[in-house]
Amino acid sequence: MAAIIVNPSRDRCFMTDFSMEAVLGAHKQRRELLEKSGNLYAEGIAWIGGEYAPLHEARIPILDQGFLRSDLTYDVPAVWDGRFFRLDDHLERLEASCEKMRFKMPMARDAVRKTLVDMVARSGIRDAYVELIVTRGLKFIREYQSYENTLYLMVMPYVWAMPPEVQMTGGAAVVTRTVRRTPPGAMDPTIKNLQWGDFCRGWMEAMDRGAVYALLPDGDGNITEGGGYNICVIKNGALRTPLRGVLEGVTRKTVLEVARARQVRAELDFVRVEELYEADELFICTTAGGVMPLTQLDGAPVGNGEIGPITRQIWEDYWEAHYDPKLSFAIDYADLAVA
Amino acid sequence: MAAIIVNPSRDRCFMTDFSMEAVLGAHKQRRELLEKSGNLYAEGIAWIGGEYAPLHEARIPILDQGFLRSDLTYDVPAVWDGRFFRLDDHLERLEASCEKMRFKMPMARDAVRKTLVDMVARSGIRDAYVELIVTRGLKFIREYQSYENTLYLMVMPYVWAMPPEVQMTGGAAVVTRTVRRTPPGAMDPTIKNLQWGDFCRGWMEAMDRGAVYALLPDGDGNITEGGGYNICVIKNGALRTPLRGVLEGVTRKTVLEVARARQVRAELDFVRVEELYEADELFICTTAGGVMPLTQLDGAPVGNGEIGPITRQIWEDYWEAHYDPKLSFAIDYADLAVA
Repeated sequence: MAAIIVNPSRDRCFMTDFSMEAVLGAHKQRRELLEKSGNLYAEGIAWIGGEYAPLHEARIPILDQGFLRSDLTYDVPAVWDGRFFRLDDHLERLEASCEKMRFKMPMARDAVRKTLVDMVARSGIRDAYVELIVTRGLKFIREYQSYENTLYLMVMPYVWAMPPEVQMTGGAAVVTRTVRRTPPGAMDPTIKNLQWGDFCRGWMEAMDRGAVYALLPDGDGNITEGGGYNICVIKNGALRTPLRGVLEGVTRKTVLEVARARQVRAELDFVRVEELYEADELFICTTAGGVMPLTQLDGAPVGNGEIGPITRQIWEDYWEAHYDPKLSFAIDYADLAVA
Repeated sequence: MAAIIVNPSRDRCFMTDFSMEAVLGAHKQRRELLEKSGNLYAEGIAWIGGEYAPLHEARIPILDQGFLRSDLTYDVPAVWDGRFFRLDDHLERLEASCEKMRFKMPMARDAVRKTLVDMVARSGIRDAYVELIVTRGLKFIREYQSYENTLYLMVMPYVWAMPPEVQMTGGAAVVTRTVRRTPPGAMDPTIKNLQWGDFCRGWMEAMDRGAVYALLPDGDGNITEGGGYNICVIKNGALRTPLRGVLEGVTRKTVLEVARARQVRAELDFVRVEELYEADELFICTTAGGVMPLTQLDGAPVGNGEIGPITRQIWEDYWEAHYDPKLSFAIDYADLAVA
């Protein structure tokens, strides 16, 4: 890797090393600075009905249908090293989800974008997990002639679906045998949703079996996804990831792009459950954690039990992409970080 | 019907007529009195973390996993004419749901019962929809060694899944063709849950097709349930209701009991989708609305298009059961109603 990247973010130095050690080490330093910042919003900021609040104090109406019937959709972009990554991809997907839910996005895209940037700047958070939730609103869907949808925004320190120290050696997963993924015919998984009952059940099973990550089958012999992450299988130098019954991940999109840029064949397809056990390399991917190697499956090593070369290459390219001005833009913290 | 019932609720007169006109008429009068009461909680009361609040002002932490991942279970008992109906059946089911979710019910049953009675008494609501929600709490399930579950309580004026005026002639339903019920292998429907994506999709389809009630198939040729209600089919004098893929409804339980007390054969079984189209009578049932006749299915009349005799009998017996001291107890509003 070690490419020299022009970083237009005026207050950051150039990164040239995208190894795990370098990327995760730099993140750790930024996190330590954040914790020392004393910023009111360092642990997170929420935007509710036009008002900002520290995240841990923010409250929503108990009557919100997003709570009372999980009648909502959401999205999660991230900020990395002070740069918003693929924000428009996330906003486009959210708008598409809203349309499928028959929601009217309560705020224009430009205003959403500005509010999010303002929140990140105010918080001083350089590596942020950003969540947008749109709910049906206060009225039950059966009265849908008259509902007004509600938007909630949150910015918090970057969330790791797989902690950095685990990424260094890879995580332990199971293919669940007590739970299947909710089928698209019941809930369309391309509408990013928070009906995580199947995933939660998966985590319980994974933990019972000495693992952390649950990979859910579709009930027809194919693998789907886990709680918030897509699954990628590498065999004989080619990458395969499920086509159906899964979220159309923005991280997955980046993974496919960087893999193809390295001449790795990468395709969406039905992926049989058996392929996981025959894989040379395995990883899961999501905005909250990036490319997360799995080196153990059902208690046995994946491949030789170490992070494989293609996974590592994709890992590095993925983080390098965060500095690509075509995919990210720098946030100006100057005015607000100390406010 | 017209049985004479001894009503131990000291402040209500005896009811002897359980016809739709009588039951719904008396309810309407109580509702009008409530609206005139000027009680702070007449539109509902919530209990959150030990504090009472008017329902429409009550708020919960945005970080609650019940919102952020619909990681919760709930139950809905009701109060009718000042009497709590089958409260212990609901609390038992909620405790069973909590156990399946690996939640620890945050409050002992006796304290829950007392708090609910106190809330109803304070509100002065004689016909109440009562909701108990238990969530994973503020911590994500993946950290489940340390979580503390959260309990939310709500009491509000009785909610009608089918409004009284529609009950008089029966509602219009469709069997959904664009959505199937989430299968038990993904989310166990005997854990009462608020992952209503499939139901919401069903309602949208029903409304698009000029109906209101969505009846969801299981994807294998059987019918399951709708949003919060069980489905009962009557053919040749016998009642059948789905055995699998549905909530074990407390209203369904009462329906089976009152039907059997009238020598109507009533059984849980796999119910094929076709049976709905061949039915003599059809109804849905839930605590929020009771026994709700369906007289139209996919735009065609059910049977002769009128509420059938068995449905009507069960309807009357169902409401009469609310005065049975074995199934309900009177709430003492004396001390608090005017407070």
